[in-house]
Order: sequence, then structure tokens, then C-alpha cells
Amino acid sequence: MFNYTATYTDHYQLTMAQTYFLKGQKENKAVFDYFFRKLPFEGGYAIFAGLEDLLDTLQELRFDKKDLDFLKEKGFHTDFIRFISKFRFKGNIYSSREGDIIFPIRPVLQIEANIIEAQIIETILLNILNFQTLITTKASRIRQAAGEYKLIDFGLRRAQGAGGYYASRAAFIGGFDATSNVLAGRDYGIPVSGTMAHSYIESYDDELIAFNHFADEQPDGCVLLVDTYDTLKSGLPNAITTAKKMEEKGHRLSGIRLDSGDLAYLAKKSREMLDNAGLNYVKIAVSNQLDEYIIKSLLEQQAPIDVFGVGTNLVTGYPDAALDGVYKLAYANGKPRIKLSENLSKITLPHRKQVFRILDNDNNFAGADVVTLSQEQDPEIMYHPFYPLKSLSIQNKNKEPLLHKIMENGIRLPEPVPLPEIAHYSKERLKRLPEEYKRFNFPHVYKVGLSASIRNERDKLIEAYKKIK
Amino acid sequence: MFNYTATYTDHYQLTMAQTYFLKGQKENKAVFDYFFRKLPFEGGYAIFAGLEDLLDTLQELRFDKKDLDFLKEKGFHTDFIRFISKFRFKGNIYSSREGDIIFPIRPVLQIEANIIEAQIIETILLNILNFQTLITTKASRIRQAAGEYKLIDFGLRRAQGAGGYYASRAAFIGGFDATSNVLAGRDYGIPVSGTMAHSYIESYDDELIAFNHFADEQPDGCVLLVDTYDTLKSGLPNAITTAKKMEEKGHRLSGIRLDSGDLAYLAKKSREMLDNAGLNYVKIAVSNQLDEYIIKSLLEQQAPIDVFGVGTNLVTGYPDAALDGVYKLAYANGKPRIKLSENLSKITLPHRKQVFRILDNDNNFAGADVVTLSQEQDPEIMYHPFYPLKSLSIQNKNKEPLLHKIMENGIRLPEPVPLPEIAHYSKERLKRLPEEYKRFNFPHVYKVGLSASIRNERDKLIEAYKKIK
Repeated sequence: MFNYTATYTDHYQLTMAQTYFLKGQKENKAVFDYFFRKLPFEGGYAIFAGLEDLLDTLQELRFDKKDLDFLKEKGFHTDFIRFISKFRFKGNIYSSREGDIIFPIRPVLQIEANIIEAQIIETILLNILNFQTLITTKASRIRQAAGEYKLIDFGLRRAQGAGGYYASRAAFIGGFDATSNVLAGRDYGIPVSGTMAHSYIESYDDELIAFNHFADEQPDGCVLLVDTYDTLKSGLPNAITTAKKMEEKGHRLSGIRLDSGDLAYLAKKSREMLDNAGLNYVKIAVSNQLDEYIIKSLLEQQAPIDVFGVGTNLVTGYPDAALDGVYKLAYANGKPRIKLSENLSKITLPHRKQVFRILDNDNNFAGADVVTLSQEQDPEIMYHPFYPLKSLSIQNKNKEPLLHKIMENGIRLPEPVPLPEIAHYSKERLKRLPEEYKRFNFPHVYKVGLSASIRNERDKLIEAYKKIK
Repeated sequence: MFNYTATYTDHYQLTMAQTYFLKGQKENKAVFDYFFRKLPFEGGYAIFAGLEDLLDTLQELRFDKKDLDFLKEKGFHTDFIRFISKFRFKGNIYSSREGDIIFPIRPVLQIEANIIEAQIIETILLNILNFQTLITTKASRIRQAAGEYKLIDFGLRRAQGAGGYYASRAAFIGGFDATSNVLAGRDYGIPVSGTMAHSYIESYDDELIAFNHFADEQPDGCVLLVDTYDTLKSGLPNAITTAKKMEEKGHRLSGIRLDSGDLAYLAKKSREMLDNAGLNYVKIAVSNQLDEYIIKSLLEQQAPIDVFGVGTNLVTGYPDAALDGVYKLAYANGKPRIKLSENLSKITLPHRKQVFRILDNDNNFAGADVVTLSQEQDPEIMYHPFYPLKSLSIQNKNKEPLLHKIMENGIRLPEPVPLPEIAHYSKERLKRLPEEYKRFNFPHVYKVGLSASIRNERDKLIEAYKKIK
């Protein structure tokens, strides 16, 4: 929906780009890796999301007249402004499939492009992928907790501004069934859903009349909010009366919603009252500061809840604020490149690369991804990135390549993937990940290692830089 | 920048609106309060932000053809769709000034409008105001910690998607000097700033050449990133060499940036090396997971830092994910309205209201806001919202009314306020708030109370509802 322009970027991308331009590096080809270092939510996996939005954005990304005037005013060089007035992204992208399960350190996506183009798109790429990956991962955890029960995204009002639009998309990939966000429903084809607000009921003098009016106009999918005055003494009895009236007209009340109080207690009491009134088909929906832990607890208490509405904690990824995804140079000016750091885990990997997932005999994920040089076919040993003594034979194991060329010279290769397909793919991938990586407490650590060739290439560069110092 | 349409709302707003429409309540006038219940960051105050964006958005908000087609497809009534095809917000808004210091419970803003319009705009209003108020408040805390040193927003890459655009605006109101976000700079007039990335240096074979190229093309405001290989053994010596070369050409190196390692230690060592080289004018900028607590600690350690670049923790409001702002019905169908709750703090206040700030003899804030009915002029006693025994005489105190009519029949009354003016106003307001409300640990609690009239109106309604039950 949103009209990003190419100035949705950090200022330093443009000063660096200008320097490259003016210093004769216009043709410098670079490779950048997108990856992250730490799994969010102290969990055992993450889910990659945002790719289709990124591809759409890159295809359309331009500097418009306002941008160019602004940069002129800010003192950028006239030749450079003329140059970027024709900017479009014409690079290649090798990427994991959107919806795939991903792990730290290994490249999730690689950009191969002119260094100026690659720099300009860095910020928007990180902005889109970091956020959607965070939220999809959160949604997936909530889906784990909720089993087969229905999950609806109610977060828009507490989302971080326009981020709410994308949060709804990401939640759907992670396993949510529907969203209250109408615009996201319109643009992404997500089922939209919702009930009624307290204000609706308060605007009437009488709760029962408010219910009846609503049921008259929404006989299908009617869900009544029962906690405005008193859940068990007023809301439930009035909802039951309304349901009976609907039955007379050949309709069925879909559900009631609880939005305050002890949800386990109230759900049990409500179920009892509904069942006693012969309304066992009426579903119980709950909301109010839910997250994966509260949903797990409610279900462990046997609370008879059918639908969970999740807001703030979903769309903001609380308690984490951001995925720490980064974009690091791996190749430039005809040479492999790395970033050194006293912190080993911050040392990057040079070259264009491939990542293979090791599969077990049932074709499920064996718990190991190995990073190789891009042309390697079948690495035999996987090394721990930093402990040379730790290695694993992966000979004769089935290996699935994870990075696919999805954009060539700025043109996307495959057709856009519809959102439900991405969500379905993600679900299928997650099924193949063993349970021990999915548990909330101290999940098993999925191994990410290096082939001998990529490790040697990295170590050679480290030695070379040490000599310079 | 972003083209919201009126479907950037929760689905239930539209089902409720349709019910009002079909049940003959098209002319029902309602009043809604926007307020929040809990100060973010365990702090002593919040700063109101997002108002100008909200007003611009409301003036432009429409259902476009795609929206109407989508709603038709979703089964909304043809008459209702025809009705909302002409939707525009035509209500009145009474609001606190953007940038003012605000506190829980008291209305920050009131909407007086046709109930259908008021419902449709609820979600976008909450989405805009909750987020910007959160981020401005966070920025203000960071400003408190940083004193007069320079603060730059570096957060775009870790912002929650398109929320990053608005985060930069909010940060400026809260006291930041500049942003790396070029688009926000373009549209909001925020100074843009930035340095260089590690990738820039890595793309060269030699750090010194990379520095020299950059300094050649950015002789003004040139800041060199010195931690790519080794801060003290490589980055600093090369930066000093570059600075000396710049001096020969009549330029001055603006600064160096540290982005890893122990920032206090490295800043002290760097200052020493720069000073010994006669470069005491070269400033030291730092970045890397900063927040108000780390900045406070760095300055307490006398780290000679001139510029702080703050990213993730600023633009996401970490560790809080959202302000808990709500939008509650206060008046509808010719009658005052409230929401009951077993949780006293969730009971709302009926009627159109005014809020007065009590001033001390120096015209500073005396630590109390009193909520009154809209027509009250000079309340004499302020009551605790829930403890009848707690009251405060405010007779003969100077009182400043805080809610101002800023939109009438959908048309904004004052001219748009430029962002620097809002930031300046906010700074002046904050000066008038005593220190004890600004400290980070267990700040003093600012009192928010009720006049006798509003309290009595509320209590009368509570009694009436009790009788119905």
C-alpha cells in the first residue's frame, strides 16, 4: 500500500553512494548477506517473512522529484543527483523461500548488485525483513500454543504506526486465521473478522437491545461482547436471550467474547450456561493481553475457549522489539570481504554462498544447516564456525539447497507467491522441524556450520588482515 | 507520505457502523475520550505526539473504490456502502497541544462526532497517537540522560516496518537533534545526518584510502567510522592522518564514530589520541544498542562523548511495546455514558470534559491536573478518582485549561504547527515540570483528580447501572 521512495533509507547510504560514484566505483559489483545473529523470544527457530513485499518494493523503488530536490538542497553533487534520478534496482537476489524456517548466522538472502544500488536498498530491506520475520515468528509461537483453535489478530490499534499493516500479513504467515485489519484483508487477501466494542453496547440504554440490533444486521458470524456490565449476570443471560431469538428466525449465534476478568473461570462458567440453554454450538472467544504463554496456560486449565484474539503482544513482537538482522558485505571490487571483530560471532563470511539443510531418512529436518561457497555441490563435513575441533560428517545425507535465485537484473523470476501459499508452505516446513526445537523453554540448539571451503576462505582473509595490522 | 484509506481500521468498526446506519442511528452524536492508564517506561510523565499527523490523516480519510468493492464482496449492505462512499470526518476535536506533558486517566483528546464517523476513525487514531506518544516519551527520557549532547536517531533499519517513518518524527519532538531517515527529513524538515558503514571501508583494500576518498567528497560534516579492523591501532591512526590531510586543504574533520567495544574506554583513549595530535576539535560519536540508561552511565564515567546515535531502543520504545491508550465512549444518544468494570481504574468518565493544570506561584506545574465538566470554569476542590477521603483544595490556584478546540466540523481551526515549533513547545513545557517527576527511578506520582461535578455525574451513572442489574 505505502509509497516508499528510495529516500526511505539512512543518510549514510547516500553519502557512501555519492563517494562511490565520484571516486570511479560506479561499476563495482558487490555481494551482501542478510542474516541475523540471535533467535528472537529465546526460541529455537525463526520464520522468514517479508520477501514478497521486499521484491514488490524493490521493483518500484525510485527517487521522485521531491527526493531529488531535497538532496540537491542538502548539498549532494549535481552529477550524482542526475545519476540517481535514473536509479532502479537491477541486481540479483538469492533467497530462502518466504515462510521457511531459518536460523542464525547463515545467510537468509543474498544481494548481488552494483555497490551503489546495494547500499541504497540496505535500509528498506532490513526494515521490511527484520520486522515481518519477527512478527511471523511470534505468530508461529502463538499458533504452537493454540493448537488447532482459531487465532485472530486484533493488534492494529496498538501496532507501531503504519507497521500494523505489515504485522497483519506476517501474523497470517505465522499461522493466524484472520485479522481485524480491514486494509490488510483487502490488499493481502487475509480473512477479516471482528465482533463489537464496549462503546457499541454503552451507546444503547439497554444491553439486550444492543445485542438484538446487532444480531438483526449480522445474523451470520455474530459474536456478542458480554463483559460490558457484568459477564455472568447481564452479558451471558442477554446473549442467551438473543441466541434464542435468532433461532426463531432460523439463525445461529456464532459466539460470545470475553475481554476482561479471569478468562479461564469465565469461559468455564459461560460454557456451562450456554450448554444448559441448549446452545452448545455457540463458541467462546477471548481477548485481553494474550500471548503464547497465557494461551498455553488457559488450555492447560481446560478452559473451553474456541477463539483467541491477540493484539499488542503479537503485532509488536513483545517482549522483543526487533530482530537483529544485519546486511554485511561479502564481496566487492573483485575480492571476497569480511568484517573483523573481537566478538567472534560478529565476524562475517566472504563470497557468494549456498546453504544446505541436512535431511534425515524421513525427509524431516535433521537439525543442521551448512553454509558453503555458492558453487559447492555436496559438502561432506560440516565444521563449527569457531571451534575447529567440532565437526560433523554429512556425507551421504540428503541435502536441500535453501537459497534460490529469485531476482535477476532487477526482474523477479518466479511469479509472486500468494499469501495463503506462503502460509501453507511455512506450516509444512514447520511440521518437518522436530519438536525439541519448538518448545518454549530451553529449546534444542539447531546447528549451523561451515563447509571446509568457506571456513578456509574466511580464515585466509582473517590472516591477511592480521598481517596488515 | 503513506496513503491510508478508511479501511485502515478494525473490522468491527464497520459492522458496528453498519448496525448504527441500518438501525436509524445515523444522527446519533457521540463523544469519545482518548486517554491512557499507565505511564510507559515506569516513568513519571509522557509526552503527547502524533496530533498533526492525525489531523492531516482525518482530513484526507476516505473509502476508495478498492475499499468499497472489498466491503461489497464481504457482504456489507449496499445502502451502507453507498453511505460510506461519501464518508468524510466532519466532527469536532478538543485536544491537548502536541508536545504537552500528559498523565494517565485524564482525557488527552476528545472527539465529538456522529457515532459512525467516530467509530470508523477509532483504530487509526489509536494507531497514530499511541505509537508517537510512546516514542516521543522514550526520546525525551534519552534527552534527559544526554543533557546538551547531540542525539541522532539511527533506528530506521530496526523500526517496525513503515512505523519507522513516524518514529523519526516522534523522536524529534522528544528532543532528538537529527535523524538518519532521509524520507522523514524530507517530509518533516528534520535535520538529516549520518556517517559511513563498515561495508564502505571493507569494500576498499585499505582503510586509509577509504577514509581519504570519503573526506575528499564530504569535507563538511565528515565523520569516520574507526572500528572496522582495530579501533586504536588502525581506525584512530588512519583518522588522524586523514584529519591532517584535510587541514592541509583548509578543512576540518568533524568526528569519529565508535560502534563496538567498551565505549567509555575507547572514547577516553580516542580523545587522548586526538588531542595529542592537536585535533581537539574532532568530535566523538558513539552508537551500539544505546538507551537512556547506557547514555547516563557513559556520562557518569566522564566518557568524552559528543554525539550519541540511538537506534532500536528509541524507535521501538523498548522495553515497552505500546502505549495502552484507549478510546472510550463518554456521551451518546443525548446521554452521558460510562464503562463499568470490577477494576476501578477501568471505569470511564462521562460527558464532554475539560482538564485544568494547576500552576504554582512561579507558573510551573504544581503536580496536579483536574478533570472537570466542559463548562466548568474554576473548580475549587480536586478529588481523588476513587478514594473519597482524599481531596485537595485548588481554590485561588492558577489553572491552565489543557483541551482546545482544534477541529470543527472536520476542518482544522489553527494552522498546522511546524515540527520544530512542537519540539520547542515540548521542551518549554518539560522545563516547567519539577525534577522529581522526571527521574528514572520511582518518580514522584503526578496527581490527576476530578472536580466534584464530574465525580458526581460518574457516581450517579454507576448507581443507575447497579439498579438495572
